Amino acid sequence: MTNAAPQTPLRVALLGCGVVGSEVARVITQQSEDLTARIGRPLELTGIAVRRTGIERPGLDPALFTTDAESLVARDDVDLVVELIGGIEPARSLILTALRGGASVVTANKALLAEDGATLFAAAEQAGVDLYFEASVAGAIPIIRPLRESLVGDEITAVMGIVNGTTNFILDKMHTESAGFDDVLAEAQSLGYAEADPTADVEGFDAAAKAAILASLAFHSRVTAADVHREGITEISQSDVAAAEAMDCTVKALAICRLEPGEDGEQTISVRTHPAMIPNSHPLASVGGAYNAVFVESRNAGRLMFYGPGAGGAPTASAVLGDLVTVARNRVRGAAGPGESNYAQRPVVPIGQVATRYFLSLEVNDQAGVLAEIANCFATHQVSVQTLRQESSPRPGREGARLVVVTHTADDAALSATVAALRELPVVHEVLSVMRVEGE
Amino acid sequence: MTNAAPQTPLRVALLGCGVVGSEVARVITQQSEDLTARIGRPLELTGIAVRRTGIERPGLDPALFTTDAESLVARDDVDLVVELIGGIEPARSLILTALRGGASVVTANKALLAEDGATLFAAAEQAGVDLYFEASVAGAIPIIRPLRESLVGDEITAVMGIVNGTTNFILDKMHTESAGFDDVLAEAQSLGYAEADPTADVEGFDAAAKAAILASLAFHSRVTAADVHREGITEISQSDVAAAEAMDCTVKALAICRLEPGEDGEQTISVRTHPAMIPNSHPLASVGGAYNAVFVESRNAGRLMFYGPGAGGAPTASAVLGDLVTVARNRVRGAAGPGESNYAQRPVVPIGQVATRYFLSLEVNDQAGVLAEIANCFATHQVSVQTLRQESSPRPGREGARLVVVTHTADDAALSATVAALRELPVVHEVLSVMRVEGE
Repeated sequence: MTNAAPQTPLRVALLGCGVVGSEVARVITQQSEDLTARIGRPLELTGIAVRRTGIERPGLDPALFTTDAESLVARDDVDLVVELIGGIEPARSLILTALRGGASVVTANKALLAEDGATLFAAAEQAGVDLYFEASVAGAIPIIRPLRESLVGDEITAVMGIVNGTTNFILDKMHTESAGFDDVLAEAQSLGYAEADPTADVEGFDAAAKAAILASLAFHSRVTAADVHREGITEISQSDVAAAEAMDCTVKALAICRLEPGEDGEQTISVRTHPAMIPNSHPLASVGGAYNAVFVESRNAGRLMFYGPGAGGAPTASAVLGDLVTVARNRVRGAAGPGESNYAQRPVVPIGQVATRYFLSLEVNDQAGVLAEIANCFATHQVSVQTLRQESSPRPGREGARLVVVTHTADDAALSATVAALRELPVVHEVLSVMRVEGE
Repeated sequence: MTNAAPQTPLRVALLGCGVVGSEVARVITQQSEDLTARIGRPLELTGIAVRRTGIERPGLDPALFTTDAESLVARDDVDLVVELIGGIEPARSLILTALRGGASVVTANKALLAEDGATLFAAAEQAGVDLYFEASVAGAIPIIRPLRESLVGDEITAVMGIVNGTTNFILDKMHTESAGFDDVLAEAQSLGYAEADPTADVEGFDAAAKAAILASLAFHSRVTAADVHREGITEISQSDVAAAEAMDCTVKALAICRLEPGEDGEQTISVRTHPAMIPNSHPLASVGGAYNAVFVESRNAGRLMFYGPGAGGAPTASAVLGDLVTVARNRVRGAAGPGESNYAQRPVVPIGQVATRYFLSLEVNDQAGVLAEIANCFATHQVSVQTLRQESSPRPGREGARLVVVTHTADDAALSATVAALRELPVVHEVLSVMRVEGE
């Protein structure tokens, strides 16, 4: 830890210099007066670790660049390390070296935090330094600090967010352009909103990592990505979107963390990410394009929402720089911010025990007694039906009638068993759509 | 400062025990296990200063209560003071005594912070203790911490918020029930949403104090309530509301803090609170009832919005308790959070130099040449007109035609001069409505 005169700079090592890293480097070098005034001491960029040197990076001294990240973080004159390379290794080893060497770390690495945050927090705690990660969830939107600090005197009961801009963009387009998933994905890729390999986004891995981080903070428990029930949006069809619209709802890919009333009064947690229908009257329904928003419910504060750009170089850099100034201020004051809070150790319940409402649409024989048979199937599995409605018009080119069912709250396991049983019924041609209904 | 064993409690003095204070006291006494786990040491309620003792307060030991606030804050065994009595004195003296004695202070006192925050911050800085005030603006919504910390590495360019639930409730009702100001105010009073003396809310004093606090934090400058241009909502008529609706807008009472491009590249600040028309497509337009929302624009993060309950005992207590846990954690770690940041010292420009768009409606002679005469009056005062439209139907019982004018961006001074000149024109019967148009 540096204890030095006001003008001795705090030395910053940057790992990664893509769109976020170069914006962070630009602000550190070009807005140094403001940063110095806000921190109380200047920041000095000591080195930037990249995969390949020799690439022209305007405004940045070529001498700063190195491909030897390990040596950079091991230098004993580095006070602050900003990790923007992502992924598990070598990011974890580099962060651990930095923390153990007495540097505070700012990271945007959701995958690493969701897989092995505990190891990082322990290293930071032991060294008495900071580990900050506002940019890991929902880009520029301040959500980590509000959960860790602003709401720390309250009991958070639910966090529900649109935390992946790519899937929000795709679902939004499926609504506004009545287009299919594949076409919209191709459009998102050509616009740069989706990666060439879109798996992390469309299969929900990115959202699952963020859900794990949010749940850990909200519920003072250790939750990893492996604890998160994950469903992607690749199965969402134009008919699902049309069905949602007919219900005055919108399909959104959500990350949902909820405090559940467990048995014997013991509280448990549910954590999941999946597409769901939400009523258009819900504030999250109108979050469009690549925007993110996180909805928080707590005992005393009630319902809060945080909204803003969820990705992009400049917004993510804003979150990184806010953390960088904060940990630098802490360094100047010889202090450290909050560490891990996992005292509650609430267990994560299996998805089968998580209760939500469900929407189903079925194609069935158009004959007397079918409704009763369907209703009976739900009843047998203890799933209570709120509405069961026959659509006036059958699908073009198909025989039979279309039924729409909305259930009351039901356990996922009971609903799954119901769907399996419906598929076995001779009167059911096809189960067209099964989707959770959230936000009511 | 207390440096003691993990189980030695941090001692809390509470000033005020109304709806917020009693909720804070309840959580401290009834949720002590959670708070202890989050802080690392227990909190102990040492005393509660009230105006009158002897009132039954369920769940709280009567021995805690005292009418002698001065002696309570002067006790050398008090670590943390929560000030919830409001107003300038005795709150200021009590807070200063507490800070100088080495206690950290949490306050919801917007009026005091907006009048004399500088004195409080200086005392906190000198004693090396914390002054936290999340509850002073927008109730439970985390906005102070995001401005002070999350966005501290960014350049905030504008903060625009609905920060007064009472006026938002009244304006909302004027829209939804087509009712007049006086009737809705009476309804708000009977529902407890407005005080018997509603001046602080409806004349904008409350919003002005909050605007001063927001501007100080956003722009790293010292802004007091006296710097804030303030207009209340008492002059808003049903015809203003109808005119806004005809423009697909909503009338909202806004607090607006903006970074202005000054002469010679020097940046200045505008700070004001007034009713304004905002387009229904703007996220603030749909913030209804007693809810608050704050919209923040910054260079890198882009557009962020924070939304939630702006008042009430439980939400305000949530914000106070979040601060209390934070300053208690700092105390345990021997640290202190951020102090005042006023290095930029940007001057506040007079309202006359602040440019916005304006909506006007006029009743004029229904004769040839009037439009040209009106247009000429705007041109003479260098106010550029975007649309000038004659309403099809005159007002019932009135002669003459009604004109609606929307200007391009114009200085307040130029617009005021235009309105004065319009009033002198023989063809103008009456200037019915003049309102700013914001959020475009």
